[in-house]
Amino acid sequence: QLVAELTAFFQPKRLKGKRVLITAGPTTEAIDPVRVITNRSSGKTGYALASAAWEAGADVTLISGPTALETPYGVVRTVVESAQQMHDAVMSQIAHQDLFISVAAVADWRVANVSGEKLKKDGSGAPKIEFAPNPDILATVAAIPNGPWCVGFAAETENLAQYAEEKRKRKGISMLIGNLAQHVMDADHTTVSIFDDAGEHRLPKSSKQAVARQLIEAIAQRLPQVPPCKA
Amino acid sequence: QLVAELTAFFQPKRLKGKRVLITAGPTTEAIDPVRVITNRSSGKTGYALASAAWEAGADVTLISGPTALETPYGVVRTVVESAQQMHDAVMSQIAHQDLFISVAAVADWRVANVSGEKLKKDGSGAPKIEFAPNPDILATVAAIPNGPWCVGFAAETENLAQYAEEKRKRKGISMLIGNLAQHVMDADHTTVSIFDDAGEHRLPKSSKQAVARQLIEAIAQRLPQVPPCKA
Repeated sequence: QLVAELTAFFQPKRLKGKRVLITAGPTTEAIDPVRVITNRSSGKTGYALASAAWEAGADVTLISGPTALETPYGVVRTVVESAQQMHDAVMSQIAHQDLFISVAAVADWRVANVSGEKLKKDGSGAPKIEFAPNPDILATVAAIPNGPWCVGFAAETENLAQYAEEKRKRKGISMLIGNLAQHVMDADHTTVSIFDDAGEHRLPKSSKQAVARQLIEAIAQRLPQVPPCKA
Repeated sequence: QLVAELTAFFQPKRLKGKRVLITAGPTTEAIDPVRVITNRSSGKTGYALASAAWEAGADVTLISGPTALETPYGVVRTVVESAQQMHDAVMSQIAHQDLFISVAAVADWRVANVSGEKLKKDGSGAPKIEFAPNPDILATVAAIPNGPWCVGFAAETENLAQYAEEKRKRKGISMLIGNLAQHVMDADHTTVSIFDDAGEHRLPKSSKQAVARQLIEAIAQRLPQVPPCKA
């Protein structure tokens, strides 16, 4: 805590007085009471951004899927499992936020035919899993009138620039941070690019904490200086 | 470490000189480079048994799926992801083992059509996941001529006694430990029953570490005193 306070003391207070909501980690979608579909997101990038935003003077709320990580110092955290739960937690906190940073790797689909009992391995063959679409949390928040300024993340395994730009347009946001998933999932170092109306800006490879501070600076530069009145 | 050594000093050396292989935790089955199917097993029960077996004087090898747990003091650990990797790790270590305790929640099925690239949310609808059966690690080890004495685990959400007895017969093992999954997954306390030829023996609810010591004692009582010669 002393180290956290000291480190924060020397960071520029670029988000002083701002309220920031960040999602992080994977979501888990139940198949039955014991089996789940999830993803390899460690949550480290989102947690590092939450720390960096707090260091920069922001009032930070973190909505996290299941991870092995501790709550970052100074940050208020809510832990959820499914994409629907993450959606509900975000929407319950979204009023009065200045900035929403969507880092969580949210499942696009949930299991439509969740079993209330553990599926048995009997003679009936492989399980039949049916899917239903999950709510799009980032697009929902981005569409809120006079809502927070929104930053998205895209983890792709190829064609990053193309997919990131498509995602930025589809979600209706002005800034998206992209990375190649095989280089970042569960790793402590990361290489990311910022995509905005001016194109792609690649940041040098560094620790997730150093990259997070650079991203908070880049976000602070782009954040409208006079935000619209909040409800 | 000092505490671990001191605690162990006061435990009866019921497995002195025995070689014990234990599996623990969930397995993860890839859907694509970022998405996986897994289960809610925390690994705590298997890790507690590994500790208790080491305290009882055994030479313990732990093959673990992905967990947030540290390697138990005194235990040699290998970490794997998929059921096939766990099978291969177990088979590479199984020679010369006296006892095999299968605690891991191993996926019955893997994804047959794993995608090499991250599946995109486009207009083509929900993902189509096809399944292929995984190897049955416990049944394979139980069928090894002059192989180790085998103990299985069953986590069920209902009909525990019936399912546990069926599983014990199907796997060809003489002792199976059963618990109700909703009472044990990711919890620090647990209630278990031992199933053997004499029926069901329910142990009192206790911490996973205390239950693990009782189970090691129960296993030591049943372990053949003069094991067959090993290859």
